Amino acid sequence: MTQLFFSDYEDASGSGRPLVIFGAGGLGREVLLLLRQLNEARPTWDVRGFYDDRAPAAPTVAGLPYLGTCADLNATAEPLAVAVAVAGPAGRAAVVARLTSPHLAFPVIVHPGVALRPYQNITLGAGCIIQQDVKLMTDLTLGRFVFVNVGSIVGHDAVLEDFCSLMAHVDVGGGAHFETGAYLGTKATVINGVRVGAHSILGAGAVAVRDIPARTTAVGVPAAVIKTHA
Amino acid sequence: MTQLFFSDYEDASGSGRPLVIFGAGGLGREVLLLLRQLNEARPTWDVRGFYDDRAPAAPTVAGLPYLGTCADLNATAEPLAVAVAVAGPAGRAAVVARLTSPHLAFPVIVHPGVALRPYQNITLGAGCIIQQDVKLMTDLTLGRFVFVNVGSIVGHDAVLEDFCSLMAHVDVGGGAHFETGAYLGTKATVINGVRVGAHSILGAGAVAVRDIPARTTAVGVPAAVIKTHA
Amino acid sequence: MTQLFFSDYEDASGSGRPLVIFGAGGLGREVLLLLRQLNEARPTWDVRGFYDDRAPAAPTVAGLPYLGTCADLNATAEPLAVAVAVAGPAGRAAVVARLTSPHLAFPVIVHPGVALRPYQNITLGAGCIIQQDVKLMTDLTLGRFVFVNVGSIVGHDAVLEDFCSLMAHVDVGGGAHFETGAYLGTKATVINGVRVGAHSILGAGAVAVRDIPARTTAVGVPAAVIKTHA
Repeated sequence: MTQLFFSDYEDASGSGRPLVIFGAGGLGREVLLLLRQLNEARPTWDVRGFYDDRAPAAPTVAGLPYLGTCADLNATAEPLAVAVAVAGPAGRAAVVARLTSPHLAFPVIVHPGVALRPYQNITLGAGCIIQQDVKLMTDLTLGRFVFVNVGSIVGHDAVLEDFCSLMAHVDVGGGAHFETGAYLGTKATVINGVRVGAHSILGAGAVAVRDIPARTTAVGVPAAVIKTHA
Repeated sequence: MTQLFFSDYEDASGSGRPLVIFGAGGLGREVLLLLRQLNEARPTWDVRGFYDDRAPAAPTVAGLPYLGTCADLNATAEPLAVAVAVAGPAGRAAVVARLTSPHLAFPVIVHPGVALRPYQNITLGAGCIIQQDVKLMTDLTLGRFVFVNVGSIVGHDAVLEDFCSLMAHVDVGGGAHFETGAYLGTKATVINGVRVGAHSILGAGAVAVRDIPARTTAVGVPAAVIKTHA
Repeated sequence: MTQLFFSDYEDASGSGRPLVIFGAGGLGREVLLLLRQLNEARPTWDVRGFYDDRAPAAPTVAGLPYLGTCADLNATAEPLAVAVAVAGPAGRAAVVARLTSPHLAFPVIVHPGVALRPYQNITLGAGCIIQQDVKLMTDLTLGRFVFVNVGSIVGHDAVLEDFCSLMAHVDVGGGAHFETGAYLGTKATVINGVRVGAHSILGAGAVAVRDIPARTTAVGVPAAVIKTHA
């Protein structure tokens, strides 16, 4: 059901395919937690450390080394998987645009407790990260580098285009459509059939009951546009 | 903990019993997902296909055939279980009223990850459907054909009368009481001891901190009545 | 993933240790449910019954006896674990202050489905109670007698001081800080880095996007202070 049974292992550091996390902040550590939970269910990733264009205060992050910047990462001489742990759609897209080495790959990373069966008819683009306790229903399309944080629910027939970010406990109604780079704050709700425009922001706790135009910020219950972006 | 054996609630005598879904829309496919998850945990249902009074665009839905209308379903010559996948209380009650064949049965359908032990003292009426990640606490009474969508929490001593619908991530406080046919939108919250009147609607994201009269629609934080129904 | 072994956090030496619940109301029965779920995963507690300064209407609660008041509990002649099932921070602190017998201990009680591994770097003070479906992320500090109700999410680097109460489906953003005795109502949300002052109340469904001063009540989306306490 929601449990994928594989042989029991402990933290598989040193086994699995090499992977680094881009983003050495709090979200990076939460993605490390996801990877450790994945490795407990099935040894998959050898997590080597963190990259970030801003060096963290300490030389290690959650016990793993800080390894350098985008430029350093592009200089890798061997195949390397990357998890891009940047919450904002624009920031995440900018990092992905700078990671140009052909050695780099961007796997889909899904928590092992998330139900994801072929009969659910779900498409996940490269670089998608799906955290624990997310419920993906049926007949969904997620583009590239969509980030879905803990506890969110994505209803039937929803479309989440590239670089969308869903923070914790977001609800996506059936047939909702998020255009490229939409950002849904914690506990944002979008009811059935509603469209959120490209690069728009829905604030924490907002409830979108009508379409949200592109490049706007909407907040409140019901959500109202309070700002238009350049 | 979250692995349950439903001997008290489900007949699971081995080979699946025949079942059809009434409602060929998105919710019908989400209920099919629930049935597939149940069958993975324990083979229970032989899902034959979908009925709906409006024929879907294609002859199959999620790989299963469209089989006809209420009238066709009443014409069944053999015992048949039915899951009524209609979100609105009035629509669901109307379908149930039309399904008059004595061959039809309406089993309780509960996701196998939902904790439901005898010591929880929970009564579920015929036709209740409880989706994944629902948390039913203790000392609860759910009437007939109550639908509880993904991620909702029902606190101690709550009473949900016949045909209530709880959409995703609804919170029901301890001792809350929903009269017949109440509809709670996605992320609606009802705090401890509050009563929601018959056939009333609480909008998505609304927070009811006082009783909601019957046959009204209430929205917002805190919830205020904006409409009275005929 | 969600199946854990609490050797680092729980003594589970085989036959159950004696434990009583202080608080014979609905929350007490929900804590009893938690203990029963723990015992199913791993026999841990021999739950003897309920204490409360107000005697319940019936001599038993959920099949277990009512055993007396704080004074009766202090008179215990043998070591006894106590789970304090009182939702309000002030009420819970008052009970703890009255339970002065050196025979009494206040274990940490965590639902067995909650991910809680050493690599998450989480500190839980004595008397913490963590209900089912709570997601604790990484690098967290919870003080003494923090109560976290069903479905809440606590993000990276959060600090919850002594006697904080988080009701169902609360979201705590990364780096948020709740001072002593903060009460977060059902579905309250605190975004990243926000501080909630000591003994303050955030109402059901409220979204705190700025710091909340001590000894206030704030409600709404976004949360606004509506009251200052003595």
